Amino acid sequence: MSTTTTQVRARYAETDAQGIVHHASYLVWFEVARTDFLRRRGVSYRDLESAGWFLVVTHVDVTLRAAVVFDDLVTIDTVLEKCRGRGLVFSYRVTGENGCLLAEGRTRHLVIDKARRPASLPRSITDKMQMDLADNE
Amino acid sequence: MSTTTTQVRARYAETDAQGIVHHASYLVWFEVARTDFLRRRGVSYRDLESAGWFLVVTHVDVTLRAAVVFDDLVTIDTVLEKCRGRGLVFSYRVTGENGCLLAEGRTRHLVIDKARRPASLPRSITDKMQMDLADNE
Amino acid sequence: MSTTTTQVRARYAETDAQGIVHHASYLVWFEVARTDFLRRRGVSYRDLESAGWFLVVTHVDVTLRAAVVFDDLVTIDTVLEKCRGRGLVFSYRVTGENGCLLAEGRTRHLVIDKARRPASLPRSITDKMQMDLADNE
Amino acid sequence: MSTTTTQVRARYAETDAQGIVHHASYLVWFEVARTDFLRRRGVSYRDLESAGWFLVVTHVDVTLRAAVVFDDLVTIDTVLEKCRGRGLVFSYRVTGENGCLLAEGRTRHLVIDKARRPASLPRSITDKMQMDLADNE
Repeated sequence: MSTTTTQVRARYAETDAQGIVHHASYLVWFEVARTDFLRRRGVSYRDLESAGWFLVVTHVDVTLRAAVVFDDLVTIDTVLEKCRGRGLVFSYRVTGENGCLLAEGRTRHLVIDKARRPASLPRSITDKMQMDLADNE
Repeated sequence: MSTTTTQVRARYAETDAQGIVHHASYLVWFEVARTDFLRRRGVSYRDLESAGWFLVVTHVDVTLRAAVVFDDLVTIDTVLEKCRGRGLVFSYRVTGENGCLLAEGRTRHLVIDKARRPASLPRSITDKMQMDLADNE
Repeated sequence: MSTTTTQVRARYAETDAQGIVHHASYLVWFEVARTDFLRRRGVSYRDLESAGWFLVVTHVDVTLRAAVVFDDLVTIDTVLEKCRGRGLVFSYRVTGENGCLLAEGRTRHLVIDKARRPASLPRSITDKMQMDLADNE
Repeated sequence: MSTTTTQVRARYAETDAQGIVHHASYLVWFEVARTDFLRRRGVSYRDLESAGWFLVVTHVDVTLRAAVVFDDLVTIDTVLEKCRGRGLVFSYRVTGENGCLLAEGRTRHLVIDKARRPASLPRSITDKMQMDLADNE
């Protein structure tokens, strides 16, 4: 299982009155990281939707270990844990500039078509998604 | 020009590290207030989109006079300033529990169809939108 | 374990290009529901923070069963599953207008003080939080 | 007046059911661009807040000329139009990959201190902010 590393800088709008990044923002970061994971393997999620496949989120979980504050640069390591035509599972590890673990989580996705019926991604696409990248290209 | 009054309670997720509601949240509140304004006049924005008319935002401005903090209950008075088939202008006044002015703003909208071409709302709908409600039903 | 019921109407800003409410919005709704749960039991989360106690989110999970679209009115039933001085666990069920289950989830919280050190809520407050309300006042 | 150029890729969470980036997201992008503008001139907004100066937003306006969709890479050119100790005005131009103008806007800011009273930035900081960068370092 190959990993893709994505960097995100905490935006002011993502913080809350506790002075830290709001927990809902991690799901947005996971989405950014997931899109990046796919793009690096030659799969544009935008093109996937244009072609009629949609990845619906069916489950998310996040464990928050340490706070992130405005302007922190965090690193998200994304792994595609399961990849079948009908569903995908991604996992994420968020670390800080000193390498410490800040948060980790997982998202589950179902493939549907334009009519919102269950669908299957073709092998040509799931093969690309599972491509083992030598390094973080 | 009749007014519709909508109440919104500031959510924690809408605050930022300054401990106040983030300025982008006002645009979301205006949208809530605008939808409410239309609903009270018998126009469901959801039905409008289903029928093939979309209100695109072409301009927004907000002047922020005093901070709103988490859990504040604010009142938004919405007025439909201009209503033509091809475009609408709404204005908003946000006041606090003691009646003081917190913010005010304006949004401009263009009517488009599903193909994102300029379109026109029928008179039956713009008439409803301009309905003068005796009180805040 | 008593339940509090909170209603939320899906905002346009909460939807995404799939035409449904974005999954991160459920965490914001849970927060609204949690604040409401506490308020109904005489605990203002704002006052809690003013008094120096902060509830930090340490874990969230959401299972999404059916899509919510713009303007849907959803019902959130909130239960305080665990309530100790140092930590809380809430669970949530989101249902639609016809009573069908749309999503469910859980959030875990740690109590900290202003210096972000672990702290304990006094019994007077945890007792209130666990108050069994006869009906949904 | 020197310009700083910042690139932002439209996130899925920033889109709405119209399939385009929600108008409130532009304010978040402006904030990212403004922070970047300051950082390039050696002014960390985070450090500014730590030192006790806060930039409160007092006015925003955005004119939206063309839609941005998910995954679009947009360019934001930021200019510091006015820079006095007590207040700042920034303007922004958002362009697409082919150079076409997508949106433009302006934000006004007041300087306040921790007690939320009007304050003044020292010359050493406003001088840096107005630094003319030869190119987009």
